[in-house]
Amino acid sequence: MATRINLNADLGESFGAWSMGDDAALLDIVGSANVACGFHAGDPLVMRNTVRAAKTRGVSLGAHPAFPDLQGFGRRRMDIPADELGALLIYQIGALQAMAASEGQAVTHVKPHGALNNMACADPQLADVVAASIARLDRSLILLAPACSALAEAGQRAGLPVAIEIFADRAYQDDGQLVPRSQPGAMIHDAAASLEHVLRMLEAGALISLSGKRLPTPIASICVHGDGAQAVASARAIRQGLEAAGYQLAPLSDLAL
Amino acid sequence: MATRINLNADLGESFGAWSMGDDAALLDIVGSANVACGFHAGDPLVMRNTVRAAKTRGVSLGAHPAFPDLQGFGRRRMDIPADELGALLIYQIGALQAMAASEGQAVTHVKPHGALNNMACADPQLADVVAASIARLDRSLILLAPACSALAEAGQRAGLPVAIEIFADRAYQDDGQLVPRSQPGAMIHDAAASLEHVLRMLEAGALISLSGKRLPTPIASICVHGDGAQAVASARAIRQGLEAAGYQLAPLSDLAL
Amino acid sequence: MATRINLNADLGESFGAWSMGDDAALLDIVGSANVACGFHAGDPLVMRNTVRAAKTRGVSLGAHPAFPDLQGFGRRRMDIPADELGALLIYQIGALQAMAASEGQAVTHVKPHGALNNMACADPQLADVVAASIARLDRSLILLAPACSALAEAGQRAGLPVAIEIFADRAYQDDGQLVPRSQPGAMIHDAAASLEHVLRMLEAGALISLSGKRLPTPIASICVHGDGAQAVASARAIRQGLEAAGYQLAPLSDLAL
Amino acid sequence: MATRINLNADLGESFGAWSMGDDAALLDIVGSANVACGFHAGDPLVMRNTVRAAKTRGVSLGAHPAFPDLQGFGRRRMDIPADELGALLIYQIGALQAMAASEGQAVTHVKPHGALNNMACADPQLADVVAASIARLDRSLILLAPACSALAEAGQRAGLPVAIEIFADRAYQDDGQLVPRSQPGAMIHDAAASLEHVLRMLEAGALISLSGKRLPTPIASICVHGDGAQAVASARAIRQGLEAAGYQLAPLSDLAL
Repeated sequence: MATRINLNADLGESFGAWSMGDDAALLDIVGSANVACGFHAGDPLVMRNTVRAAKTRGVSLGAHPAFPDLQGFGRRRMDIPADELGALLIYQIGALQAMAASEGQAVTHVKPHGALNNMACADPQLADVVAASIARLDRSLILLAPACSALAEAGQRAGLPVAIEIFADRAYQDDGQLVPRSQPGAMIHDAAASLEHVLRMLEAGALISLSGKRLPTPIASICVHGDGAQAVASARAIRQGLEAAGYQLAPLSDLAL
Repeated sequence: MATRINLNADLGESFGAWSMGDDAALLDIVGSANVACGFHAGDPLVMRNTVRAAKTRGVSLGAHPAFPDLQGFGRRRMDIPADELGALLIYQIGALQAMAASEGQAVTHVKPHGALNNMACADPQLADVVAASIARLDRSLILLAPACSALAEAGQRAGLPVAIEIFADRAYQDDGQLVPRSQPGAMIHDAAASLEHVLRMLEAGALISLSGKRLPTPIASICVHGDGAQAVASARAIRQGLEAAGYQLAPLSDLAL
Repeated sequence: MATRINLNADLGESFGAWSMGDDAALLDIVGSANVACGFHAGDPLVMRNTVRAAKTRGVSLGAHPAFPDLQGFGRRRMDIPADELGALLIYQIGALQAMAASEGQAVTHVKPHGALNNMACADPQLADVVAASIARLDRSLILLAPACSALAEAGQRAGLPVAIEIFADRAYQDDGQLVPRSQPGAMIHDAAASLEHVLRMLEAGALISLSGKRLPTPIASICVHGDGAQAVASARAIRQGLEAAGYQLAPLSDLAL
Repeated sequence: MATRINLNADLGESFGAWSMGDDAALLDIVGSANVACGFHAGDPLVMRNTVRAAKTRGVSLGAHPAFPDLQGFGRRRMDIPADELGALLIYQIGALQAMAASEGQAVTHVKPHGALNNMACADPQLADVVAASIARLDRSLILLAPACSALAEAGQRAGLPVAIEIFADRAYQDDGQLVPRSQPGAMIHDAAASLEHVLRMLEAGALISLSGKRLPTPIASICVHGDGAQAVASARAIRQGLEAAGYQLAPLSDLAL
């Protein structure tokens, strides 16, 4: 019987007059979309258009909440008190839930964005704030979290369904954290290399670091990116390679723990 | 048998480090709160605190969506295309719905704020955009709209429950529009005069203009304001005066058409 | 002796992670740049990079202030009181002045953006607020204003140097206003047609409307656009065509009235 | 001969419809105003009004630039890359310079606000970015910096005139840093105690920590606060106490190193 796997990507990252990414192309590749909620990217109209485009292709919707930092695209670390952070998350998720509801759709997962995600992956206390806030809003929302992260553990503590993701185009350190972009080998640009990276980890049921170390983990989803024509081609190659290798694409809801 | 009437007020209009209004005092007076949703006032933390304070006192929650204009407090007219305006409304209502849900509460009505409300009261096309957007999100949301306004009519066309409100501290023109603040007699500052204004209109079942003209209308709710110590005292006097005159305070949901 | 003419374009319209336009290409074509000041586009870092790129090519710097509406790119009409509008303009111009000063450059002109520009071209009272605010800051700043506009007249009333511009890719109505984009023939997409449009008006010393009507006007500058590969090619063709026709490119300061 | 001392306060911290602080009262007490520049507080109209009010009373103007965080009042730490931070500072200072210029005034000092100030006081590299950016804009701007801070040292390295300030209502640690607000004794609320704290440090020519340790420092200015009626009374008592003790109030420009 075929192993099932999900593909996810960040979408709806345009804002006002500014476009970003090739959402249409990515929506033909992935099964789940992480939709920007207006704090780091996206605006209400972009969110609606993204919901509609995802609906057409049967792609499931996730909220991609972030720090309130449009100018920094949510990539700058901010020190936000726990109670305010929780409120920011609920606000953003709710905005997307309403946009989805008004189109007859539902938000089924949440994935924190950028610096917030990075911080929550390394800081168990912050991760608990994130997970508890999501649970407080709706305990059936799937938390999409990186393998071997504090965030994934916090999701389980909070009683949320958790879907573990790996990155197709990023190398890992021995502790399971991503190799920082500033270091050589951090990014895997080549489509074939990226596919091989993914297949090796799926077969091993583990993260495999640059040095070859294996960190066993369940894997529910693979995060692909769509900035640049090459990125879309790479994402497509990963999907086709997975199917050729006998994997069956599946919705996130079937794969969450 | 006592005639039933609702009192409503705009609340949650603080933002970040800035406070506005005496929400605690008003929540002891009104039955329904119109809660700012972050576009003209309010932020996620203020919204949460407002939801909690309303919950404690059994005050029902309404979304108070506005133009995206924090600096202008949503009081400046903006030309926003219909599809974008609809998305802005759904975004804001959804954000408050999630905040309410995370506290075990629900948003039961919507009242547009400021310039958006003024424009929708006079422009049937814009009013239809507002009403249709709310209906698209949730057809059970009560539209709280001024008496004799295009907005109230649009709500009925859209199939929404509509609660008609009058203003305790504003004088009316013969066409049912508010006397502009720039004109003499626009504002009724005195608590006793304000109460008398309200009682006359309730007894008449009509707006009564400055010149004495009567425009028959159902009246479900009275809008009071809370900026300044005098305003709160005036709001309290209106509530006490209504009760002394035999009116019974009721939730908005009992009074919507 | 050769007639002298200036070319100007809107630049620095990227924001944060979002890019817009091909500034590098346009800076090789125009003599004057209208630089976004952060309210509709641009951010401090984009502004600095634009100042530096313009400096390298000897392109003069103008402030391109707008309504505070990032999401709407300053294209939505807003009702802003006169005193606040004046303050908004001075704030934005000053921010760019400082950015220029920190790079050893100076801001030499101002051109309002988008909806603000459109409104100031048709409304003499608003135009006076704009011109008087600029004059209040620095009476040597050149106001770059459309031919036959209320804004150009206001600039002269305020004692500002005024440089009159025409648009290379827009058709005119008989009253000198632009044909609205919603109407057929509003835009002139073809490079050759656009060049011919410009040359005819320069030779006539007049706006020439769609119907052929001539409205005599001095012309100091031609506004070209750079959104899309075709737009840049068209701008380049206009420059080359002007030079081939014997016109000499000149700084705005030599051509202001 | 009387020793000369300056008093400074943060002003212009209202925003849009929200008021903060009693600027009118404080302007009668201090000699120098640190004016919010729109990123954490203040808006163009508030800035203009603050400039005018300061002009009337002969109070000198300083820019009070901050992180771009209106909702957090600039009090939340943000990781902003050096080049972008420099651009943010120049943008904000320039906006206030233009507002001052349009009222016939000039900005004569700069004091970073909130989390940015705290970070620059402890981090020499960040302090250098701040000081170098100010110097790049205008080498005659006085940097108003806390005693014994990395920021004061960076100002001197950058060749800026530096005015050293102490806080009237805050206790110091043995290393010269402020006692964090979360710790007991951090704030000195009592007017008499605050005045005594100031007088002891001025006489000693040193910071005096909670434990009594002395850290010698020049002192040019005393920072007072104005949030709350008590704070204004306390600021007034400090001014009167200083004059009674024979100190002479002076402009910042006379006291910078």
